[in-house]
Amino acid sequence: MTQAFGGYQNEIYLQGMGGTRPAFSTDATRLEEAARGKLEPEPFWYVAGGAGSGATMRANREAFDRWRLVPRMLREVSERDLSTTLFGTRLASPVLLAPVGVQGIVHPDGELATARAAAALDVPMILSTASSTGMAEVAEANGDGHRWYQLYWPHDDEVTLSLLDRAKRAGFTALVVTLDTWTLAWRPHDLDNAYLPFLKGTGLAIPFGDPAFLAGLAKPPAEDLPAAILRWLPMFNGRSHTWEQLSLLRENWDGPIVLKGIQDVADARRAVDAGMDGIVVSNHGGRQVDGAIAALDALPAVAGAVGDQLTVLFDSGIRTGADVIKAIALGAKAVLLARPYVYGLALDGEAGVRHVLRSLLADLDLTLGLAGHRSVAELGADCLQRI
Amino acid sequence: MTQAFGGYQNEIYLQGMGGTRPAFSTDATRLEEAARGKLEPEPFWYVAGGAGSGATMRANREAFDRWRLVPRMLREVSERDLSTTLFGTRLASPVLLAPVGVQGIVHPDGELATARAAAALDVPMILSTASSTGMAEVAEANGDGHRWYQLYWPHDDEVTLSLLDRAKRAGFTALVVTLDTWTLAWRPHDLDNAYLPFLKGTGLAIPFGDPAFLAGLAKPPAEDLPAAILRWLPMFNGRSHTWEQLSLLRENWDGPIVLKGIQDVADARRAVDAGMDGIVVSNHGGRQVDGAIAALDALPAVAGAVGDQLTVLFDSGIRTGADVIKAIALGAKAVLLARPYVYGLALDGEAGVRHVLRSLLADLDLTLGLAGHRSVAELGADCLQRI
Amino acid sequence: MTQAFGGYQNEIYLQGMGGTRPAFSTDATRLEEAARGKLEPEPFWYVAGGAGSGATMRANREAFDRWRLVPRMLREVSERDLSTTLFGTRLASPVLLAPVGVQGIVHPDGELATARAAAALDVPMILSTASSTGMAEVAEANGDGHRWYQLYWPHDDEVTLSLLDRAKRAGFTALVVTLDTWTLAWRPHDLDNAYLPFLKGTGLAIPFGDPAFLAGLAKPPAEDLPAAILRWLPMFNGRSHTWEQLSLLRENWDGPIVLKGIQDVADARRAVDAGMDGIVVSNHGGRQVDGAIAALDALPAVAGAVGDQLTVLFDSGIRTGADVIKAIALGAKAVLLARPYVYGLALDGEAGVRHVLRSLLADLDLTLGLAGHRSVAELGADCLQRI
Amino acid sequence: MTQAFGGYQNEIYLQGMGGTRPAFSTDATRLEEAARGKLEPEPFWYVAGGAGSGATMRANREAFDRWRLVPRMLREVSERDLSTTLFGTRLASPVLLAPVGVQGIVHPDGELATARAAAALDVPMILSTASSTGMAEVAEANGDGHRWYQLYWPHDDEVTLSLLDRAKRAGFTALVVTLDTWTLAWRPHDLDNAYLPFLKGTGLAIPFGDPAFLAGLAKPPAEDLPAAILRWLPMFNGRSHTWEQLSLLRENWDGPIVLKGIQDVADARRAVDAGMDGIVVSNHGGRQVDGAIAALDALPAVAGAVGDQLTVLFDSGIRTGADVIKAIALGAKAVLLARPYVYGLALDGEAGVRHVLRSLLADLDLTLGLAGHRSVAELGADCLQRI
Repeated sequence: MTQAFGGYQNEIYLQGMGGTRPAFSTDATRLEEAARGKLEPEPFWYVAGGAGSGATMRANREAFDRWRLVPRMLREVSERDLSTTLFGTRLASPVLLAPVGVQGIVHPDGELATARAAAALDVPMILSTASSTGMAEVAEANGDGHRWYQLYWPHDDEVTLSLLDRAKRAGFTALVVTLDTWTLAWRPHDLDNAYLPFLKGTGLAIPFGDPAFLAGLAKPPAEDLPAAILRWLPMFNGRSHTWEQLSLLRENWDGPIVLKGIQDVADARRAVDAGMDGIVVSNHGGRQVDGAIAALDALPAVAGAVGDQLTVLFDSGIRTGADVIKAIALGAKAVLLARPYVYGLALDGEAGVRHVLRSLLADLDLTLGLAGHRSVAELGADCLQRI
Repeated sequence: MTQAFGGYQNEIYLQGMGGTRPAFSTDATRLEEAARGKLEPEPFWYVAGGAGSGATMRANREAFDRWRLVPRMLREVSERDLSTTLFGTRLASPVLLAPVGVQGIVHPDGELATARAAAALDVPMILSTASSTGMAEVAEANGDGHRWYQLYWPHDDEVTLSLLDRAKRAGFTALVVTLDTWTLAWRPHDLDNAYLPFLKGTGLAIPFGDPAFLAGLAKPPAEDLPAAILRWLPMFNGRSHTWEQLSLLRENWDGPIVLKGIQDVADARRAVDAGMDGIVVSNHGGRQVDGAIAALDALPAVAGAVGDQLTVLFDSGIRTGADVIKAIALGAKAVLLARPYVYGLALDGEAGVRHVLRSLLADLDLTLGLAGHRSVAELGADCLQRI
Repeated sequence: MTQAFGGYQNEIYLQGMGGTRPAFSTDATRLEEAARGKLEPEPFWYVAGGAGSGATMRANREAFDRWRLVPRMLREVSERDLSTTLFGTRLASPVLLAPVGVQGIVHPDGELATARAAAALDVPMILSTASSTGMAEVAEANGDGHRWYQLYWPHDDEVTLSLLDRAKRAGFTALVVTLDTWTLAWRPHDLDNAYLPFLKGTGLAIPFGDPAFLAGLAKPPAEDLPAAILRWLPMFNGRSHTWEQLSLLRENWDGPIVLKGIQDVADARRAVDAGMDGIVVSNHGGRQVDGAIAALDALPAVAGAVGDQLTVLFDSGIRTGADVIKAIALGAKAVLLARPYVYGLALDGEAGVRHVLRSLLADLDLTLGLAGHRSVAELGADCLQRI
Repeated sequence: MTQAFGGYQNEIYLQGMGGTRPAFSTDATRLEEAARGKLEPEPFWYVAGGAGSGATMRANREAFDRWRLVPRMLREVSERDLSTTLFGTRLASPVLLAPVGVQGIVHPDGELATARAAAALDVPMILSTASSTGMAEVAEANGDGHRWYQLYWPHDDEVTLSLLDRAKRAGFTALVVTLDTWTLAWRPHDLDNAYLPFLKGTGLAIPFGDPAFLAGLAKPPAEDLPAAILRWLPMFNGRSHTWEQLSLLRENWDGPIVLKGIQDVADARRAVDAGMDGIVVSNHGGRQVDGAIAALDALPAVAGAVGDQLTVLFDSGIRTGADVIKAIALGAKAVLLARPYVYGLALDGEAGVRHVLRSLLADLDLTLGLAGHRSVAELGADCLQRI
């Protein structure tokens, strides 16, 4: 089955015989350049930019270069098994779509296109609280796909519980609690553009859920939309939560709960203590703490400490199949892809997301086999050499 | 209170709803590019250039990249406390404005604009001996702000004592003695331009103090101004002082004395022995000794040796909030900002300095909280990882 | 005799006196630029591109920079001996031409030009299974040159044995079995161009051997050529072989067998156990596994483990004479050159291959002597320093 | 006296008051760019280019960046003493002009201009065997300056002895024997240009000495000049010498003999055994062995082994005053400057050489003092930190 992933290579070459080329590049750098060429500067930089000087973004990528695969030859790897079981659910691959908010700013189909592409490829979609589109609509577009819900944790428990309840009813099976963005970071590109999508026309009505829900809960008077949003922002932005407060989520969510944004071993241990089911080792793609440790540099120690007690996922810097292999070899069970699929969405809607995803999975499939491995399950630190 | 710092972020985004963007970038690199686009080459390079090959400037920045913050999650950091007490005075933040001379070459308001911006943000201004504007005028513009006086140490004790006396009377509370610039370094950009601001029309009359003061002291005849300046230069330039001579300052300055330009542990110990109150670990932003150790590389050992005996400050390379956090985590009590605020001054006068300062403080505030820290006081080497 | 190599330097300078310059640069970077300027993007990138992000290609080059020659003076090195004996055959130099398929896409003379240039310089040519030209024709062009046959190992033993038989009869003395390309890697440049030469007009009829051979074996009906090729591709692409299967080759090839693509010590030991005569430490020039260890980084351990039990060759990154010396000093007996000679072919056919080869050999000869060595046989790790 | 060096800074700034700027930059990078803009490509690249891929040139510079000065404050360094005694002769500074051949290709005044500039600044000139101008003329231009003679060692003892004899009579006091260029390296820029100055019109008549000398010795028939040169080249190029042959030089040269091109400790020890007076740790500015160790990386071990037994000099990569300090701190007694002064010569003849030299000496003088040192004699490894 997994050969279907690598088979995307053949499909592209065969289309080439008919004179057709992919709509945009499969290379991460050229992909970003293409998106830059298509998008207005404001949404492009909202996606592409990072916190502060961008040091964390650069560190994320450089960390991958310090680990190197040591390929093995003449192994029986004709059939690869990329399947990965997360929280009892078998997935076709160890790749998920990271939660990315306000996708409507890069393409009119926004999260709906993403949801359809994800379902088609058996890739779980993690829907952001800050979706441009209501969770019910996204769930419908996702059909019988796997979908998790990402929570920007409100400071009103009633709102929180309402979000959880609605997510459950819409078929979201796991809850991903983003810890690292309780307040928005200092992001020079967005500040230079004075651009915060939540405050703009695009996606304005439903930045944090369905319009109907917000309408019911907030009972907004006849005030203008920006004013309404401004009143709502402190619900999500500007105040931190604490470990103790996790019990509210634990008690009100039956499915797996995954803490996103862990980079420290002690924090990972507290996640175990708090009864969490998983963590995402992540620095939010370098969008939150400037000058921070690369996520991949944090991974080995964190996975070594808690990898047998909860499910360790990884994001921040995944661009190629080799990146996926390295993250798994260093202790992650699966990885989240972020910016690349948003660029795909920007360039070609649902088809764009599919192209990016199929490219990554084909790259992963082929690279895994060429490195001499039959399945992601057999990957470990002995597959790598540190330089 | 400190949330006011991070709040600058909201202010910018809200202005964006009305179609207004910041006058120039908050990113250090783009800020410098903007200043380069506005200024004539001579003053731009006087500010931007460094000694020799620029190796020390580059080293200053690279050193920050080798230290990485390890963010912590789910801590109670909604309210951050950036306040810092230096020499018994509580400041709103651990940031000061480094002494920068002849600010009149980048903007007609020069030090007066800087003084007003500093006062507005409760940030101490360290006025350079080489100010374009007399210290009394600057003090007046600074109002009830915190102001320190930087001394380029004259070789005539009478002149020295007169400067100290006038500084005291103008309300400068601390004395910062710059040790690393007893003679001007070899600076290729300025030499290629044959540009030394002290010898040019701009700021010519008062390069080292108030016109009246110099007039009284030097009793210049009717000679032309350049000739008068040339006669005055050896008073400040070309000869070194010694540790023994510090007693003159110690005996004639009641407030704190801070030695600026320390990079060696033995020198730091001698500063303690000489009864100094503080040091600035600094290489003058790479403007003096080419090929020198990065200031941040010098900091840990120096702070470890004397940090409990005097106040350790830091400058040379601070560009972002993360930089401030790293310097403090490695032993500095507070940091000095230099080139960025001068670029702000060049681009927009007092408003420009305010924008740069508010941006840095907001970045610091948000990054501190997002890294999991409630106050600068709790920062230590355990917040960092070296790569 | 070897002085003839260094003598190419004099030849060029003397031609300069008559106003003639080399047709293109001897510098690897400018050589590639020249080829890029001449070729269409599709064939250029087919040659120049690598797998995935190109990380392995970059790593290959960077690895050479970490090893440094320590030149020795005043030694008797006027006459150098570059000769190298491989499998009982004395060669003029330790350089071979790596197998590169479909050379017809860069120059109409393709492998025939390469074969002639190789023979003229006593450099063994390793003919690719994926040659644009039939092996008999290439053998004829190669005359009494040294030629080895590279096998892309078919999954039908009858086809395999037929290829070996034909290679023997055409005078190919050694068999090089490429292990690392049992399936084509994910190569973004080619995918962006949807360009796979085997599926294009150029070289289409004979991508994997002589037309007559394929015709006889496959009995292709009147179907179109692309369809025929597509039916043939799985014979070579998509399924791995195993160590056990090597016995088929061992039993049916009397000459030396060399496994190409070894990077791991355990694999190298298995090659010894399997009765192989040699290995090529190689990552296929970074064209197969993205994010892999540099070939030169793999060499010392592999050569240390098996260098006395079989012949260790090296490729992936050789661009200069110093590179050849370093690879030999780290344990290789000889090296394979790849992209540079293909660029030479692209730019000037047979003359271009000769220029590239003569340049490399002259560089090697002169650098060897200037480093203080009389022969490649005396090179060892003590000639190098690691930085 | 040495303050005269730093005083060049004041001189430039004062000229700036009259509207005059230096004719070209004092920064090494911009200096090279200026020379590139003025010279034809052939002579420019003959000077600027290196062996092979240029790796050794780059390594030379990078090595300096790994050593960092640790400045010391408040020392009595108002008066610096740059004077250095080499072989009993007191020099104003620890800087010499490296031997550079065929200077006539960059400026019509060639070595004569260099000789005058060197004499004016009390900087020894090391005249190359490959001078564009006869040694007697150069000696006359050098007047009572310090001059050493560099030997490209002929393979005919009669020629060698004649060169030594003539050098002695022309007042050259020390003999510098270049070991690393017994055959010319592979230099792609020159080969691409098919440019070897010795074979071109410029400087053709006297590439290896005075015309009269060569005429007398060689008794050239009426053949054309290129042919005559070609007959002469093997006298200097293509064959190595040995340690044993040094006795010929030792017995026929009463003054100091310095071996140039040592990078290995064992070679340095043999220089001591051979009764040599000095060595130059050098890789010929990266012009001979591509991929070689940086000269500065070789220096500490070599100087540590033999520094108390003979005089250790250094070249290869000196561009700034800090570079000079670092080389001396790591064991060199003095350094040789090469490419920069040739660029000065190209740009402005004698005045250009003077500008480059005065700039370097001023930079050295100021940087030495600002780093806290009163003389080059007190420099040692404790002034540096390795990163």
